[in-house]
Amino acid sequence: MLRSRLTKRFKLDHPVISAPMGFAGGGKLAAAVSAAGGLGLIGGGYGEEHWLREQIEVAGNQRVGCGFITWSLKKQPHLLEIALDSTPAAIFLSFGDPQPFIGRIKQADVPVICQIQTVADAGRAIDLGADVVVAQGAEAGGHGEKRGTFTLVPEVADLISARASETLLCAAGGVADGRGLAAALALGADGVVVGTRFWASEEALVHPNMLAAVVSASGDDTLRSSVIDILKGYDFWSARYDLRTLRSAATDRWAGKEAELRAVAEVEVARYAKAAAKGDARRAGATVGEGIGLIHGIAPADTILRTMIGEAEGILRKAPAWIAT
Amino acid sequence: MLRSRLTKRFKLDHPVISAPMGFAGGGKLAAAVSAAGGLGLIGGGYGEEHWLREQIEVAGNQRVGCGFITWSLKKQPHLLEIALDSTPAAIFLSFGDPQPFIGRIKQADVPVICQIQTVADAGRAIDLGADVVVAQGAEAGGHGEKRGTFTLVPEVADLISARASETLLCAAGGVADGRGLAAALALGADGVVVGTRFWASEEALVHPNMLAAVVSASGDDTLRSSVIDILKGYDFWSARYDLRTLRSAATDRWAGKEAELRAVAEVEVARYAKAAAKGDARRAGATVGEGIGLIHGIAPADTILRTMIGEAEGILRKAPAWIAT
Repeated sequence: MLRSRLTKRFKLDHPVISAPMGFAGGGKLAAAVSAAGGLGLIGGGYGEEHWLREQIEVAGNQRVGCGFITWSLKKQPHLLEIALDSTPAAIFLSFGDPQPFIGRIKQADVPVICQIQTVADAGRAIDLGADVVVAQGAEAGGHGEKRGTFTLVPEVADLISARASETLLCAAGGVADGRGLAAALALGADGVVVGTRFWASEEALVHPNMLAAVVSASGDDTLRSSVIDILKGYDFWSARYDLRTLRSAATDRWAGKEAELRAVAEVEVARYAKAAAKGDARRAGATVGEGIGLIHGIAPADTILRTMIGEAEGILRKAPAWIAT
Repeated sequence: MLRSRLTKRFKLDHPVISAPMGFAGGGKLAAAVSAAGGLGLIGGGYGEEHWLREQIEVAGNQRVGCGFITWSLKKQPHLLEIALDSTPAAIFLSFGDPQPFIGRIKQADVPVICQIQTVADAGRAIDLGADVVVAQGAEAGGHGEKRGTFTLVPEVADLISARASETLLCAAGGVADGRGLAAALALGADGVVVGTRFWASEEALVHPNMLAAVVSASGDDTLRSSVIDILKGYDFWSARYDLRTLRSAATDRWAGKEAELRAVAEVEVARYAKAAAKGDARRAGATVGEGIGLIHGIAPADTILRTMIGEAEGILRKAPAWIAT
């Protein structure tokens, strides 16, 4: 068990939040993370109403939260009401201006977690009254931007100190073990948001072929691009956000040739859908971050969390020994 | 004072190496860092023989090392002999295959530090017998690649544990204060290589206008591109390496339009040289990393180092308090 401002505010055993991964992060994973003493989040993603209701149901009585892609939620704001009806532990917003939703969430007395990718957006989230700011570095799997976790976290920590010191800060992007958790605390975070490590868990909604394909991968084998978004038929993201995935035949073929790909998108989207349905990891692109290089097996979420906390405790306990006497 | 395998092996007070920054990192800065208890390195850069001899002279009796751009050193291997004649504390090689030089350096009984940007290259450096591997993340100023510091460091640490546990590991890219130093140790490093923070020091060979321009910058204001290389007339780097600099009128104009720029390079190189000579920060691109957002003033190198160590000691001393009892 670790204690920080995050564990205190959210009454957790561990300062660890599971990233609300679209598709992969359902109610089962969120509930398992919360049951193990962290804060589990359901990945509301683009907003499938049926799926969202189902996953909230699956989470049962566990106290979990829900995440949304902010620009997508704007098209279907009723999904926020569905999430709020479940009295969630938190609502997590990322990729877009949180302003239209923060008032409503606060009115429901639910904590708001805003994920940002730049210091500029951190400033806006703080000013809008986010309870928690998540500084997400480019190492992260899935959508994101260019700043690295290692510098974004302390720069946002300084901004919070100067502007609204009661705002909490979590690090996201590359936190896959206890070393990352301990490092995030040292950089000034109150906790971490963990995606890839929980993506590779027994509870995640991921095709077993994809899981099998990633456990031997290095972080070197991932890249940021828009290729997989285009191939999934999601070619409507703002150019500021791209997507980190594992390299695959698809990214090898199309990365840097997005215009060419768009010209044949119709055919390629259909082919990709077939490959993804079969869990064909050679053709499809597993949505994982650089932290995949630190992951060597699939495990239950509670084992993942306990291992991470144990490692972090070991590092933090021995830290004073680095000081020369 | 902190102790680690790096301080022990190199007999240092602090596990901090100054990055061998081409042009900016001369003998004065290297000597100041070594005098303050770290390990100072002269930035041999592309290899100006006269400049190198001069800077070794300036460093005087201080025990400093020397860094080279590996692919460039291959064209002028006699520069390595000049450096070895000064009985350097270490030779630091980055950007290219170190194989042609490692034997000669070891024969001279000088430690070899190999900076790498991928796990694959880390493996090669370890196998070639590097004494220290520096894992450089994309946050770094100047040349580099895409991996983030936060995941590259622990992944290389695991590789070292598995393959050659006596090899030392330093983190580079975004280490600008004591939080970064403490985090690097938590991630598994034995020490850090610090560039940008020492770039913004009184001893660095940087135009005062450039220094003045950067102290208010955020890490958001930097980007990786090949634009400044092309404008400096250094358009001979392998495409795998680009360069992080501060945004400027030049990068705003040309980033993403490198082919167009190359077509008018002759005129633009001449214009850029004039702007750079005047320290025109609006037009030229200061070679700094994302860590610039953590830097708010110019200071002498020994103050920088003392402040960083003091901060790191504070964090490491209090680290056990994160463990809940």
